[in-house]
Amino acid sequence: MASLNDDTVRTLLEAPNFAVLSCQNRDGSILSAVVWISLEDGVLAVNSAEGRRWPTNLDRDGHVTALVYAQDNPYEFVSIRGTASRDTTGDADAHIDRLAKKYLGQDSYPWRTPSETRVKYVIAPEHVTYAKQ
Amino acid sequence: MASLNDDTVRTLLEAPNFAVLSCQNRDGSILSAVVWISLEDGVLAVNSAEGRRWPTNLDRDGHVTALVYAQDNPYEFVSIRGTASRDTTGDADAHIDRLAKKYLGQDSYPWRTPSETRVKYVIAPEHVTYAKQ
Repeated sequence: MASLNDDTVRTLLEAPNFAVLSCQNRDGSILSAVVWISLEDGVLAVNSAEGRRWPTNLDRDGHVTALVYAQDNPYEFVSIRGTASRDTTGDADAHIDRLAKKYLGQDSYPWRTPSETRVKYVIAPEHVTYAKQ
Repeated sequence: MASLNDDTVRTLLEAPNFAVLSCQNRDGSILSAVVWISLEDGVLAVNSAEGRRWPTNLDRDGHVTALVYAQDNPYEFVSIRGTASRDTTGDADAHIDRLAKKYLGQDSYPWRTPSETRVKYVIAPEHVTYAKQ
């Protein structure tokens, strides 16, 4: 099994590659969404706004799979299956700014709406697969 | 709800963009894989080899979600939730060649192994979402 600490995996996750995050809807079907991810101090995390569909799913059922392929080579990918839990350290707003820096090169997340509350989820990896063809 | 017949969706799926296919493992966790897809005569299909993990999952439980984002703009994506069923018309070998043409520009799939049996799955869409930011 691969690990988030492997150089190949870390390089893929630290670059601004997008993830497809998949979780379960209440009816058992699978919801997939394109998301930004961070790998900071070995910890994988994602960010959304309160009330949206995938964070609502994760609050009910934390089982999640994140698939990241290299944007310049889709034959190189990493899959992380694990369990998501809400970050409770109050980092969600700072985290979305760091993600904006990573993916947009901007110091502050530009798409905030006045009414939204950001939420951050940390994913504890249970099974990591890496492949490159 | 979007449809596979929408011009924007069709353009995204007919271009050689990769899909992330997600289905259920026996233990309820979600398996995601990067796959080629075809959209031919309005029908979405994927291809694998007998015995591999995701086709084995689909034989047991056909619920599937395919997420395709534009490789040159991950903020444009389509998600197709639906049910996969095996193609029984004997098209699997010809289909993987057509996919090789689409994704590799080659007339024949170059990665066949002598022992493998190709399998094709058609996905009946139940819920299609399209977004472009």
